[in-house]
Amino acid sequence: MPRYALKVEYHGAPFAGWQRQADQPSVQGAIETALAKLEPREHTIAAAGRTDAGVHALAQVAHCDMEKDWSPFRLSEALNYHLKPAPVAIVDCAQVEDDWHARFSALERRYFFRLLMRRAPATHDKGLVWQVLQRLDAQAMREGAAHLIGHHDFTTFRSTICQAKSPVKTLDALDISEVQGLAGPELHVHLRARSFLHNQVRSFVGTLERVGAGAWAPAEVKDALEARNRAACGPVCPPHGLYLAGVGYPDDPFA
Amino acid sequence: MPRYALKVEYHGAPFAGWQRQADQPSVQGAIETALAKLEPREHTIAAAGRTDAGVHALAQVAHCDMEKDWSPFRLSEALNYHLKPAPVAIVDCAQVEDDWHARFSALERRYFFRLLMRRAPATHDKGLVWQVLQRLDAQAMREGAAHLIGHHDFTTFRSTICQAKSPVKTLDALDISEVQGLAGPELHVHLRARSFLHNQVRSFVGTLERVGAGAWAPAEVKDALEARNRAACGPVCPPHGLYLAGVGYPDDPFA
Repeated sequence: MPRYALKVEYHGAPFAGWQRQADQPSVQGAIETALAKLEPREHTIAAAGRTDAGVHALAQVAHCDMEKDWSPFRLSEALNYHLKPAPVAIVDCAQVEDDWHARFSALERRYFFRLLMRRAPATHDKGLVWQVLQRLDAQAMREGAAHLIGHHDFTTFRSTICQAKSPVKTLDALDISEVQGLAGPELHVHLRARSFLHNQVRSFVGTLERVGAGAWAPAEVKDALEARNRAACGPVCPPHGLYLAGVGYPDDPFA
Repeated sequence: MPRYALKVEYHGAPFAGWQRQADQPSVQGAIETALAKLEPREHTIAAAGRTDAGVHALAQVAHCDMEKDWSPFRLSEALNYHLKPAPVAIVDCAQVEDDWHARFSALERRYFFRLLMRRAPATHDKGLVWQVLQRLDAQAMREGAAHLIGHHDFTTFRSTICQAKSPVKTLDALDISEVQGLAGPELHVHLRARSFLHNQVRSFVGTLERVGAGAWAPAEVKDALEARNRAACGPVCPPHGLYLAGVGYPDDPFA
C-alpha cells in the first residue's frame, strides 16, 4: 500500500478541530470521507498537529495509505474535488516511504498567530484574526517573549487537560512582527518548536497581549513561567487567530 | 443638521450591492437601518461608488445628515453596534461642511483587485479573491495594461447597461504587483481614475487575465480598446476579488 503525505490547508470555523469525533464535523473526518470516495473502505489518517476547534491550518501535514498507485497530483485533485464545499484543501501531495509518519517523523511544528488591532469590527477578516481594540506595544511583548524562548517547564502555559507526559519543552523561536494589513495594523506572531503542549500557543499569546496592553510588565512573564502554575497564566486567547503554519521533517517530502 | 462623512468597509458576499433595493439586502440599506436606530426616521445616504453585488470595500465613503450633534467617534461606535452582525464596519467618521457630498465632491476613486493563482481551492480567502488555476505572466499583463492608461473611449470595457453619459474616461493608473499571500502567489491590481464606467474594472481584469494566460498578446488589448465595441472585450471577471479601496477629495475629511 503506497503511503502519501498530504499538506492540508483549512478554515477552522466549521470544525470541532482536527480530530475525528462521533457527532461533530472534523477536518480528519472530512478528509477520511473524501478518501472513502476514492477507495471505498474505512480510512484512518494521522496528522502532525491535532488542532483545536476553530484553529486554522496553512500547512498541516497528514498521511494516508492507498491501495491503488495514485499519482500524487491525481490524488490531491481527486481529494479536493470530493472535499468541496468544505473549506479544506490539499495544497500538496507526495508519495513517502512506508515507515514515514506525519506525526512521529516530524521534528518541528510552526505556528502563526494573527492579531488585528482596531476598534471597528473586522469584516473580511472576521474569524481569521484575533481582534483587540487597542494598539499593543510590540517591543514590550518581544521583551516578555524573550523569557519563554528555550528549554523550560511550561506548566503555566499548558491546559489542565494536556495529555503530554512532561511539561518540559524547548521553544525555539517566538518572533513578533508588525504588519500593515488591509484592515489595519496587525501583529504576526511566529512560533517554532519540536512540539507544543495543549493550548501552549494561545496561553503565550493571551499572556503577551496583556504585556502589549501595559497590564503586565515584561518581567512578569518570567515570574509566570517560573511559578510553574497554570493559575499564573494570562487569559488564554481565542483560537481564531491561530494557524498551524508548517511542519518540519528530516527530509521535506514536498521539496 | 450636521453632516458626517463615513468611511465604510464591507464584505460584499451577503449584499446585492451598495444601492438600496426593495427586497434584497444592500450595504446602503444596512447603514440606513442602523442610522434609524440612532435617530428614528427615514435616512437616505449617498456614497462615492455604487459597488455591484459581491464587490467589497476597504474604504467606501458615504455621508449622512443627523439631527443631533454627534461626536464622530460616538456616531461610528453607535453605528457599528447596530450594524452587527452584518459584515459592514464604519472605520472612520468625520464632520463635514453642509455642502460636502460623498459622491459629487469626490475627485478620484481607487480600486484594488486580488487574484490568487493556484490549483487547490481557496479556503480562508474564498470569496475574497478571484482564483485562477495557473500562474499568469504579470509582465505581459503590464504591457497590455499600458494601452489602457490615459484618456480613451472605453466603450469596449463598459457594461451595456452602463448609465454614464459618455464612455470617455481617463484612467490614471493600473499597476500590477506580485505578492506572496498566505495561500499562494497573488497578483494585486491597483487602479485609479476620477470615475469608472459600470463593470470597467472587471472588464479590464478579465481581459488582462487572458493576456497573463497567454491567450491574448498584449497588443490585442490595444486592438480591443480601439474597436470601441463591447464584443471586443475579454470575459468580465467575477466580482469577489474586487475592492473599492479609497476615494479622493480636495481635502481629505478623515485626515
